[in-house]
Amino acid sequence: MAPIPAAAHHRVVVVGSGPAGHTAAIYLARANLEPVMYEGFLAAGIAAGGQLTTTTEIENFPGFPDGLSGPELMERVRCGESSELSSMRQQSIKFGTKIHTETISRVDFSQRPFRLWREGHDEKDEDAILADSVVIATGATAKRLFIEGEDTYWQAGISACAVCDGAVPIFRNKPLVVIGGGDSASEEAVFLTKYASKVYVLVRRDKLRASKVMADRLLNHPKVEILWNKIPIRAEGDRLLKNLVIEDTVTKERTNLAVNGLFYAIGHTPNTAVFKGQIDLHDTGYIKVHPNAGVPSTYTSVEGVFAAGDVQDATYRQAITAAGSGCMAALDCERWLEGQGH
Amino acid sequence: MAPIPAAAHHRVVVVGSGPAGHTAAIYLARANLEPVMYEGFLAAGIAAGGQLTTTTEIENFPGFPDGLSGPELMERVRCGESSELSSMRQQSIKFGTKIHTETISRVDFSQRPFRLWREGHDEKDEDAILADSVVIATGATAKRLFIEGEDTYWQAGISACAVCDGAVPIFRNKPLVVIGGGDSASEEAVFLTKYASKVYVLVRRDKLRASKVMADRLLNHPKVEILWNKIPIRAEGDRLLKNLVIEDTVTKERTNLAVNGLFYAIGHTPNTAVFKGQIDLHDTGYIKVHPNAGVPSTYTSVEGVFAAGDVQDATYRQAITAAGSGCMAALDCERWLEGQGH
Repeated sequence: MAPIPAAAHHRVVVVGSGPAGHTAAIYLARANLEPVMYEGFLAAGIAAGGQLTTTTEIENFPGFPDGLSGPELMERVRCGESSELSSMRQQSIKFGTKIHTETISRVDFSQRPFRLWREGHDEKDEDAILADSVVIATGATAKRLFIEGEDTYWQAGISACAVCDGAVPIFRNKPLVVIGGGDSASEEAVFLTKYASKVYVLVRRDKLRASKVMADRLLNHPKVEILWNKIPIRAEGDRLLKNLVIEDTVTKERTNLAVNGLFYAIGHTPNTAVFKGQIDLHDTGYIKVHPNAGVPSTYTSVEGVFAAGDVQDATYRQAITAAGSGCMAALDCERWLEGQGH
Repeated sequence: MAPIPAAAHHRVVVVGSGPAGHTAAIYLARANLEPVMYEGFLAAGIAAGGQLTTTTEIENFPGFPDGLSGPELMERVRCGESSELSSMRQQSIKFGTKIHTETISRVDFSQRPFRLWREGHDEKDEDAILADSVVIATGATAKRLFIEGEDTYWQAGISACAVCDGAVPIFRNKPLVVIGGGDSASEEAVFLTKYASKVYVLVRRDKLRASKVMADRLLNHPKVEILWNKIPIRAEGDRLLKNLVIEDTVTKERTNLAVNGLFYAIGHTPNTAVFKGQIDLHDTGYIKVHPNAGVPSTYTSVEGVFAAGDVQDATYRQAITAAGSGCMAALDCERWLEGQGH
């Protein structure tokens, strides 16, 4: 890590390094805006590259019909026999993005140019990085319970994304369990019935938080069985998940549930703590974006600060939608800078 | 082309085969909805695969740092020495999309299931294909003037997308010309100044249609020269474009303009003729989409009909944004069908 000169001043800083951040960087770099990316150093507990780096097999990113792993898409793509460096990160660098493996831990968007500080160097005003514009692409983190055995079976039966992983062969015609009682748990459980022999839904209390229409759909589904007042305790298996020890929250009795898949659907946490008080957030913590000239855009409440990817999207949350919005942020940013005469 | 059984009834039909259509199909197929795609047979004068098939080098689709051609992305990707079949189209097929190389020439969205007819089989009611839901991804076509020599130098100096092609080496430090007098011509001309030694703007009349702010930016740019009352007549060169014969619309005098690049910026035509009167369109012909539950979505004015890609996007129009919205359409469609009990 090269030391940053005092008061480095950039036209645009990209915070985050998932598909949104890198797609923004690729477009910004090709527009000669010399973007600087802070990819994070285990920011939000996740490696640079974002949530995808925790995914073993991506089948639905268009252009890669043979599938590839998350790290391959973000860092390197396997191609024939050779393993060439040919990822989104390489693509950003190729066009001139400067990448720093540091986490942005403090910002000040109340003055222009904007100020950003790096973790470990965020106390003195003079350590600030200056930026005419900022693209926030810090993503979101799926909530997990970190039960015993979870590390062992993560991506070997345990997932936090039914849409991403549900179609994977290890889950076909197998009993699965969804953890959660809200709309997204209901939706993911119904989604998984397409593949599973049976879908259990583990609900902590004696009722669902889901909306009536979602709850009815779940309760009436022939493949779904809801287990009330239950929490997961321990994941077990061999190479893959085979069994889940669960506990009744009332009787404290522990039983075994034979399942080949466990899907957390207890929500996501957008990685916006550092932006609180600086830009408008939804109650859920996601960044508010608003239409520009009547068209959906990546504009935030602060002009010159743009948000892309999961950090502003609680609905779709796919690699390809994040990448698309990263491109939008770059074009929005570029046109905005152009209008400012930067 | 296998004959279609009378009254084939599908859960979802995808119309169009660019990045939006194929990304939608990949997601719909993985959700076991057995999508049927009508990829078109020279629909809007463009090959199946969409506008990208007319592009020689794509550098900004994330995940492909070495670049690839439009046909490679849509149909096959070169990978090391071998040229494997590994495109978006293959990916759609792999997950179960049925693709028909026919053009949809008539629709009826006033009854359910929806009715769609194929070109050449669009007169009899009983030839209709039935669909519970439809994803429209028919794209847009960049307007061109089809001057003499245009076919020869298309993608060898002539382009209709400055953002896509402007950074290509053949345009670096070279004189370029933009055709058009509106906002997008101004924007593309200013964009091209990043790479070009000089940018001419050929304007048909004696004034710009661009907004004042855009016009001022153009008029004051040191690298830009506006040529008033001029139209392009003939493209000339060797392997690449070298010269443009232009004509003064007042004096009819013809002169040579030495340029290495010609960029059309005279607008796009969304491919929506077939949907007129069936769903709400903007005055510009683009499909109107509206937020769903407060979130930007692909919902059109007809419930169960979704629109993705350039056909509903006059602003960003990139392969990656189209792909992102194709994913959104698939998820919107899937959740909508689920809610209908289909």
